[in-house]
Amino acid sequence: MQKILVANRGEIALRIMRSAREMGIKTVAVYSDADRDALHVRYADEAVHIGEAPSNQSYLVGDKIISACRKTGAEGIHPGYGFLSENAAFARQVREAGLILIGPSPEAMEIMGNKLSAKAAALKYNIPMVPGTEEAITDINDAKERAVEVGFPILIKAAAGGGGKGMRIVESVTDFEEQMQLAVSEATSAFGDGSVFIERYVSSPRHIEIQVLGDTHGNILHLFERDCSVQRRHQKVIEEAPSSVLTPEIRSAMGKCAVDVARSVNYTGAGTVEFIMDDQLNFYFLEMNTRLQVEHPVTELITGIDLVKEQIKIARDEAISFKQEDLEIKGHAIELRVYAEDPANNFLPDIGTLQTYMTPKGPGVRVDDGFEQGMEIPIYYDPMIAKLITYGKDREEAIGRMIRAIDEYSITGITTTLAFGKFVMQHEAFISGNFDTHFVKKYFTPEVLQTDNEDKALIAALVMEKLLGEKKINLTNGVPLESSNWVKNRKSLS
Amino acid sequence: MQKILVANRGEIALRIMRSAREMGIKTVAVYSDADRDALHVRYADEAVHIGEAPSNQSYLVGDKIISACRKTGAEGIHPGYGFLSENAAFARQVREAGLILIGPSPEAMEIMGNKLSAKAAALKYNIPMVPGTEEAITDINDAKERAVEVGFPILIKAAAGGGGKGMRIVESVTDFEEQMQLAVSEATSAFGDGSVFIERYVSSPRHIEIQVLGDTHGNILHLFERDCSVQRRHQKVIEEAPSSVLTPEIRSAMGKCAVDVARSVNYTGAGTVEFIMDDQLNFYFLEMNTRLQVEHPVTELITGIDLVKEQIKIARDEAISFKQEDLEIKGHAIELRVYAEDPANNFLPDIGTLQTYMTPKGPGVRVDDGFEQGMEIPIYYDPMIAKLITYGKDREEAIGRMIRAIDEYSITGITTTLAFGKFVMQHEAFISGNFDTHFVKKYFTPEVLQTDNEDKALIAALVMEKLLGEKKINLTNGVPLESSNWVKNRKSLS
Repeated sequence: MQKILVANRGEIALRIMRSAREMGIKTVAVYSDADRDALHVRYADEAVHIGEAPSNQSYLVGDKIISACRKTGAEGIHPGYGFLSENAAFARQVREAGLILIGPSPEAMEIMGNKLSAKAAALKYNIPMVPGTEEAITDINDAKERAVEVGFPILIKAAAGGGGKGMRIVESVTDFEEQMQLAVSEATSAFGDGSVFIERYVSSPRHIEIQVLGDTHGNILHLFERDCSVQRRHQKVIEEAPSSVLTPEIRSAMGKCAVDVARSVNYTGAGTVEFIMDDQLNFYFLEMNTRLQVEHPVTELITGIDLVKEQIKIARDEAISFKQEDLEIKGHAIELRVYAEDPANNFLPDIGTLQTYMTPKGPGVRVDDGFEQGMEIPIYYDPMIAKLITYGKDREEAIGRMIRAIDEYSITGITTTLAFGKFVMQHEAFISGNFDTHFVKKYFTPEVLQTDNEDKALIAALVMEKLLGEKKINLTNGVPLESSNWVKNRKSLS
Repeated sequence: MQKILVANRGEIALRIMRSAREMGIKTVAVYSDADRDALHVRYADEAVHIGEAPSNQSYLVGDKIISACRKTGAEGIHPGYGFLSENAAFARQVREAGLILIGPSPEAMEIMGNKLSAKAAALKYNIPMVPGTEEAITDINDAKERAVEVGFPILIKAAAGGGGKGMRIVESVTDFEEQMQLAVSEATSAFGDGSVFIERYVSSPRHIEIQVLGDTHGNILHLFERDCSVQRRHQKVIEEAPSSVLTPEIRSAMGKCAVDVARSVNYTGAGTVEFIMDDQLNFYFLEMNTRLQVEHPVTELITGIDLVKEQIKIARDEAISFKQEDLEIKGHAIELRVYAEDPANNFLPDIGTLQTYMTPKGPGVRVDDGFEQGMEIPIYYDPMIAKLITYGKDREEAIGRMIRAIDEYSITGITTTLAFGKFVMQHEAFISGNFDTHFVKKYFTPEVLQTDNEDKALIAALVMEKLLGEKKINLTNGVPLESSNWVKNRKSLS
């Protein structure tokens, strides 16, 4: 491959082109009307206009992408994330056109693209799934028996349902019959079908995912975890690696599961196996993302591996040049997604022009972005402005650098998640590692952004000092040693 | 220390303040008339004006620095590099004022500030020095005997001289008498004193230095080497770590020597022990710099240690929190000093206004700078605009990222060393690791900057491919395996 087309826009298009350029590979950009002046267009060696601003007129139209390849002689296509990146039909179209998709096979995409077939594939390898009933139940005694087997708290879900209707959390067996009857009657009246599923309710979930790489020679390995538990609107906003709750044993067990999931579909390229973890440190397979992940830079920083370069080499049929045992975690990395959205208004998009735009620099700071001062954030696409990633020798240093970098980041004209990011970095629950995916719901109110920063910095410093003084944080990797369920369970396991 | 004053300007002032801020320490900037609008002034929590633009009216006036501390309540002073950083009298003044200098003791500065006393101190530890006569010689037979002992080629230097007068390089013993007579007569007529020194002439020298850290508890350790052999006007312009010619054995021997040199003056803080290395891989002590070095970031990248934070902790009497055996080299880092100077005009300063100024971003790129678009580079100080530092898993990746980052760096209005940096990164001698401090003299002419970049990129890629294909480069650390004296000698040693 001497020339590749990047079928994406914004920060990820630039990020992919940077690695290609470092490898001496020429790049082709594609762009919609809204992106005529975008940085990824200027950065590429060539650029092809592919249509109007809405994605379904441009970035989502496979034919236009393939015809842009023909026009420019690009031999490979990197789809980035989003858009066509997990579209098996497009992957087939690329293959049939005699081009190379820098990603997994359409077959692997297809299986992992459907939760049921994904779970079926993974079952062969004994991958842990959230315990529960495989089929719908109607009989109340039957249901109670299964509920006891699964263990409380449990979730009763209408088989025919959705949107929370007929859904009940049951804390203990004594409440079961009453709640089951309510669920069945709610489901019956809502859907005309009273049958329900029972599954274990993960009340304090942690979102932990494993990065994997597979090549066309049958090698599959993992590059450790990313902890993506700080979310808003059920979407990730802050990610870090390593996770502050994994023991080496759990890390290795999750890594093995992730490699097995990938092996179940002969996975090639970079992929991510997502797990949910409860506060007893049990982990359950959720799904596999068959593409590069937004948060991939934290993995690059702790392993020293350029994931985009690996993707390209794998697409060229090269064998992965390192082995599982060559990989080790060094240091700690945190990513904050800098979105054009208003945390005080339920994190809704806040589109506009970047009147001031100055990015932080110096030690341990990486900024992946796709904009510069004076540019407008288009309304048509994901409103991410940048990813701010910091790296340090341990979690404490990475947090300190994130706060420093947020302070240096200057954006006016648009409300962003920067101040929210600082709030998280200075929050005791985050500093101590004692948090789950409900972090925002539990702790965040728009008012906290009004508090004087000096006060918050002082409080954060005191928390950090107290935890360090009481040896509640292990300085080497920033793992909290006590004070939470996570950590109590971690101790008993390690 | 809750507040420190940074007695410097430009990129290094910002870089120091970043680490202080990450540690929760308040910062005070000082500035001259020329720096009223400088970034370091805006970045600091407080700023004190200390006089007119010329350094001897402002940044070099110890009294003004100390009075700025009094005014702001700063308890410590970080001198950066240059200016007052190696001034023992200032260090004493700071101590007498009851303030803390973030640096070594005045006694250590004083001894290492003079080459003769530095060598005398180092001699206790059997540190290798360039072989030669300790005292001046006049007798020709005596001289010949010593020359044979030292080994050819040798250098004859006038004892009373300087500026190259009475200096002769002698390749072999057969030329000795004639050259000695010429040297003595030249010295006699120039200085009225015909006595000379004889020392080994290092014809193909490599400049390699070792970073050391010492604390007030008697711990001294080293953070490996930096290879600073690419120089112009006898000053460093490109530095890298690790060096492409050291074996683990030589690295460890140089590290031990550097620690011994530091121990000879009970060194505290960060310091650098400089060596010259000949193409037989013999190394000789040159001098010790008792301050933070311009090129310190390459060491930070390969070790993960923030050297400024370590300096501050040592000044607070903390013990270094890691041991020699905890340190390891991971990856490869290269620094290019981006100077406002014209390589086509003998690298003379080219001062002016930064009409465009856009810095590179993305994976493995760090920019330490002190300017932004629209600013002027003042004529009063060192014309360095920025340090561009790249990091990769090996030397090949670090070089590829440097070329990519240079291409992304956009500066107009001022001629810089960026294009020169790209020339070096694409030169076979640099890529193969087969170069010495004469790199610029040997290979650089202004015309090379005129060549089409596509051609040069192609040639560089072919060289890299050829070397890799012939296994002349070891991919793990980018060390060339053959094709130069350096490398032949390295092989016989390892």
